[in-house]
Amino acid sequence: MIVKAYGAHTADKPLESLDITRRVPGAHDVQIDIAFCGVCHSDIHQVRSEWAGTLYPCVPGHEIVGRVSAVGAHVSTFKSGDLVGIGCIVDSCQHCADCNEGLENYCDHMVGTYNGPTADAPGHTLGGYSQQVVVHERYVLRVRHPEEQLAAVAPLLCAGITTYSPLRHWNVGAGHKVGVVGIGGLGHMGIKLAHAMGAHVVAFTTSESKREDAKALGADEVVVSRNAREMAAHSKSLDFILNTVAAPHELDAFFALLKRDGTMTLVGAPATPHPSPNVFNLIMKRRSLSGSMIGGIPETQEMLDFCAEHGIVADIEMIRADEINQAYERMLKGNVKYRFVIDNASLAL
Amino acid sequence: MIVKAYGAHTADKPLESLDITRRVPGAHDVQIDIAFCGVCHSDIHQVRSEWAGTLYPCVPGHEIVGRVSAVGAHVSTFKSGDLVGIGCIVDSCQHCADCNEGLENYCDHMVGTYNGPTADAPGHTLGGYSQQVVVHERYVLRVRHPEEQLAAVAPLLCAGITTYSPLRHWNVGAGHKVGVVGIGGLGHMGIKLAHAMGAHVVAFTTSESKREDAKALGADEVVVSRNAREMAAHSKSLDFILNTVAAPHELDAFFALLKRDGTMTLVGAPATPHPSPNVFNLIMKRRSLSGSMIGGIPETQEMLDFCAEHGIVADIEMIRADEINQAYERMLKGNVKYRFVIDNASLAL
Repeated sequence: MIVKAYGAHTADKPLESLDITRRVPGAHDVQIDIAFCGVCHSDIHQVRSEWAGTLYPCVPGHEIVGRVSAVGAHVSTFKSGDLVGIGCIVDSCQHCADCNEGLENYCDHMVGTYNGPTADAPGHTLGGYSQQVVVHERYVLRVRHPEEQLAAVAPLLCAGITTYSPLRHWNVGAGHKVGVVGIGGLGHMGIKLAHAMGAHVVAFTTSESKREDAKALGADEVVVSRNAREMAAHSKSLDFILNTVAAPHELDAFFALLKRDGTMTLVGAPATPHPSPNVFNLIMKRRSLSGSMIGGIPETQEMLDFCAEHGIVADIEMIRADEINQAYERMLKGNVKYRFVIDNASLAL
Repeated sequence: MIVKAYGAHTADKPLESLDITRRVPGAHDVQIDIAFCGVCHSDIHQVRSEWAGTLYPCVPGHEIVGRVSAVGAHVSTFKSGDLVGIGCIVDSCQHCADCNEGLENYCDHMVGTYNGPTADAPGHTLGGYSQQVVVHERYVLRVRHPEEQLAAVAPLLCAGITTYSPLRHWNVGAGHKVGVVGIGGLGHMGIKLAHAMGAHVVAFTTSESKREDAKALGADEVVVSRNAREMAAHSKSLDFILNTVAAPHELDAFFALLKRDGTMTLVGAPATPHPSPNVFNLIMKRRSLSGSMIGGIPETQEMLDFCAEHGIVADIEMIRADEINQAYERMLKGNVKYRFVIDNASLAL
């Protein structure tokens, strides 16, 4: 099956319209007509080969929502017409300890939604900037939001689960004071989710201009992190910090805000290392620096259901597929509130 | 009461014999005739003012064992003649959340056994390189080892609890594979304790010459960390790593050996930072880098009882007080197996 897509043939060229092929659904496959696809910073890194090993043509996109248009003979949990989502994972080994625990995201053989190994043409996976995708049922998520919210659900598939998973893993909830560092695509979801989990949320930003926005997203307090006095007011008071900033920055000032046994979890990986953290800050209060990567399939479903129940979606700006190159430029300037989403119907135009 | 001690008047002079005063025991105080005092690396840092804020005269020593020689009117749990120990802590606020949980080591007002604030002359605490010490009963530990082991018990009060506490906090036990990095004063205790807790212990050292020693201490396997092939054999297999090395070193090679959700805990603080860890190593397997500082008083008692029950003491080399300056030079070369202990009777000579 040949479908329209948007992608790049080389690292140094803009994205353009492409024809790609999708496999005929196998016995356990679900074929999805893609309605919307969110635009993640990883898409830019990958399509521009800023990380090692980009394969071309590269079709990015791992925040996919749409409707089932066909299912394989052995698929019983999905049927044509169902609203579904695909996140960052389209395959894994399915038999290791991680897969058995539903933590496919930590499987050594996890296959990403784009740029991952596959038997399908052209030999690597192609993502959601396309009209259709075919995925094994294990990696298909059910969307229970009202259909009119579908576009704003798309970013939950990466930005949502990447922030939900660490908040759950480190038991954030009522009675906790939680910091969210950075108010972008990931951070704005972190604020909404931590707030819905019942935590007292303190948002940290470098820009005074985001103060009111952060409160509107659900932050109980907002700290401009360049202001030492504002920072000091939260000394040793936070149970957990979700740090969504991928740019290299000093971690020490945030450690000082954690209580004894507090953890700061990084969900962004900088291209060059953060300044080395001061070990005394860890030792003196038994603090931890951790990392977390997206989330497993069962937890992604749990997150989608939690968001449907609490009326949570991303704040988005819709674009046509042919606006993607300009959108990337705006993202690199932080000029989006807070996620671009492609209207995939525009691929047919 | 005037007693003999060994200490320094300035950072750049060797330690020498001093007379110091000890307070008359108050209602809750225990007066201890010191039999032995272990020699910790911190003693060198502090007496040479390599950390900020050393006050002189400085009398180091926080691995103290001896016999009770007097108790205050309200002391009911100790009596003259009891074998007891004093570790790194001689006071704290006694009413914060940390103190209430028995984690006096994390109290913001914890008073160290030397160089801490006190109303006693000369205005800062003086440590265990002395004939006697007077301490509030809350900070006095009971020693249940046979008396002939008393000298080798001394290092348990710092090196023992500093390694025991993180091993317990991160639930090390049977069925766990645990790494201990560095085979010195702390590391040799870490190996003994993790082994006694039932873990499979892998010791990491930079020197081929320590391979057999580490096995004798209780390591099931020994890895020379400069050998990439030996390191790779343990890839993603360790549940926990206790890193006792205070010198700056690459942490990334050790992260790669941790399983998903594994933690590496640092108990040494380098004078200059470690090379900044690669954040991908944390994110890809939800790993953590943590710190831990000594342990609380109840846990120190638990550790002493655990060691008495399992016949665990430190491996020591006994010295006279007037040999302390040469002992420091040997420690700086790593030339001790594994802890010097002062025979405090030598102070009277």
